[in-house]
Amino acid sequence: MAGVTTASMQVYVVEDRAFGARAFSNLNEGYGKVLRYGAYGEEVLARLRWMNATLGPAVGEALARAGGLDMKAMIGRQLTMGDEGHNRNIAGSATFGRMLAPHLARVASGETLEQILRYFADNDLAVLNPVMAACKATMDAAHGIAESTIVTAMARNGTDFGIRVSGLGDRWFTAPAAVPVGLYFPGFSADDANPDIGDSTITETAGIGAFAMAAAPAIVKFVGSTPKAATAATLEMYEITAGENPAFGLPALDFRGTPTGIDIRKVVKTGITPRVNTGIAHKKPGIGQVGAGLVRPPMACFETAVEAMVALLEG
Amino acid sequence: MAGVTTASMQVYVVEDRAFGARAFSNLNEGYGKVLRYGAYGEEVLARLRWMNATLGPAVGEALARAGGLDMKAMIGRQLTMGDEGHNRNIAGSATFGRMLAPHLARVASGETLEQILRYFADNDLAVLNPVMAACKATMDAAHGIAESTIVTAMARNGTDFGIRVSGLGDRWFTAPAAVPVGLYFPGFSADDANPDIGDSTITETAGIGAFAMAAAPAIVKFVGSTPKAATAATLEMYEITAGENPAFGLPALDFRGTPTGIDIRKVVKTGITPRVNTGIAHKKPGIGQVGAGLVRPPMACFETAVEAMVALLEG
Repeated sequence: MAGVTTASMQVYVVEDRAFGARAFSNLNEGYGKVLRYGAYGEEVLARLRWMNATLGPAVGEALARAGGLDMKAMIGRQLTMGDEGHNRNIAGSATFGRMLAPHLARVASGETLEQILRYFADNDLAVLNPVMAACKATMDAAHGIAESTIVTAMARNGTDFGIRVSGLGDRWFTAPAAVPVGLYFPGFSADDANPDIGDSTITETAGIGAFAMAAAPAIVKFVGSTPKAATAATLEMYEITAGENPAFGLPALDFRGTPTGIDIRKVVKTGITPRVNTGIAHKKPGIGQVGAGLVRPPMACFETAVEAMVALLEG
Repeated sequence: MAGVTTASMQVYVVEDRAFGARAFSNLNEGYGKVLRYGAYGEEVLARLRWMNATLGPAVGEALARAGGLDMKAMIGRQLTMGDEGHNRNIAGSATFGRMLAPHLARVASGETLEQILRYFADNDLAVLNPVMAACKATMDAAHGIAESTIVTAMARNGTDFGIRVSGLGDRWFTAPAAVPVGLYFPGFSADDANPDIGDSTITETAGIGAFAMAAAPAIVKFVGSTPKAATAATLEMYEITAGENPAFGLPALDFRGTPTGIDIRKVVKTGITPRVNTGIAHKKPGIGQVGAGLVRPPMACFETAVEAMVALLEG
């Protein structure tokens, strides 16, 4: 029998102070060879060890000194600075880094401090992970409401795409995941792509990411599209959502709130599936992220969920 | 006879590597009680002394360690992040601060480093001054071209608005300055406003600021206007400019380059004067900035300049 030991992993903790939900996320590793896309070489592990031993505790102390960070205000600000909060987080990451920096100066020093500040200087996704946790805490508050047809989680495991619905308990409604359409890093192509993977779709579930594409026209350049198409993407999502979030105003739409709360009934009725911005993982283990692009969940997830709701209400 | 001594002031130095021009600017003091808007109390002087003795040298060392900063790339990036580069510089300042931070960690430490990083965390105008110097270096390269009717500088001294024209030497064409229309800080109103002041109009001269308003719809909220009006402001400026700057693409206009190079002939012919985004100074000395808003130079500057060009060409 092998010896058993324990370890701990540094995570962001985001609290929904209105409803009491707490959500967690790891610290963002950046692009390319990263564990979350399947890379696990020595350089990946060394970076993760540094993040866990050095970066995480320093960021935690700095956040405590700063009195925490209002993620609702952060996301709202990002949307006025060209971020949609999923694939593009450069403005939010810069804002997060500059806000933490004076506090970090009191909890680390010298080369260690330089490396921590270098992490925030170079990682345009640094804020993505607390953003995802904020979206998770938000949507958890919407889960478990009787008869509600609002989607409270969307996630993919590289094989299937699954959704959870507020009034349908903890069941996942799944169907095979598609391969994203996108732009590949140099040396990679669509032949290398794995079907859609990851739980970052919690951003779209909460009304940002692809739903806030109108805020981030710079993204569409990467996929050969136009700013008009970015605005059209957001406008389409109003067709399948229950409300608009006044805290997340979209400048290009006269500060109209982001389309929020995917309603499975509207998805099935209109035939419009949610849009998702996402990274693309290599299909072979060990390589990591090879691109970024756009994808949609299969309609079957929503059809099965509607059928389950009908059965529940009739039963 | 009084004793004579010398002193030095820390300034940013921006070089135009294509044409050899160099331009300079002081370090930005932030909002409110600041020397550049006429405040000169002890707290203002203490801050300036700290900036000159501590902040400036540290930023200089950090910039040297970073190998300088490409201001053309910086401004281009700002325009994809909701800044227009004159009144709104929050994304650029965050980007500037995060890029300098790891270098600053090696040239200062402890409380001093914390204060320096606090400056970059809190001052949403930190990057404005190198941006202005970059605009000045750019427009100096366009100055002194025979028969050119392009405006190479616009500036105001609180009484008059003046312009210089490429083909008309060092002469300033002046007329009385207007009072900006804008939003006032709490406790102040239009009754407190001084006529337009400052040389930050070099930004509009180089095709950003009000000319890039389409990039910064969040600004117009402050003056009770709409994002559509922000785009219209930029579109109007194409009517009086000679070209479009492909390095400064505007997301809202499908990455069309900013309207650049005000032509005095087009101004007079169309009756459209340049738009200017600006801060507002209190009319009494010692108080400082009391608001921010929009203004236009008097048409007389452009009419006199066109007459001077006609006289030069006929003479």
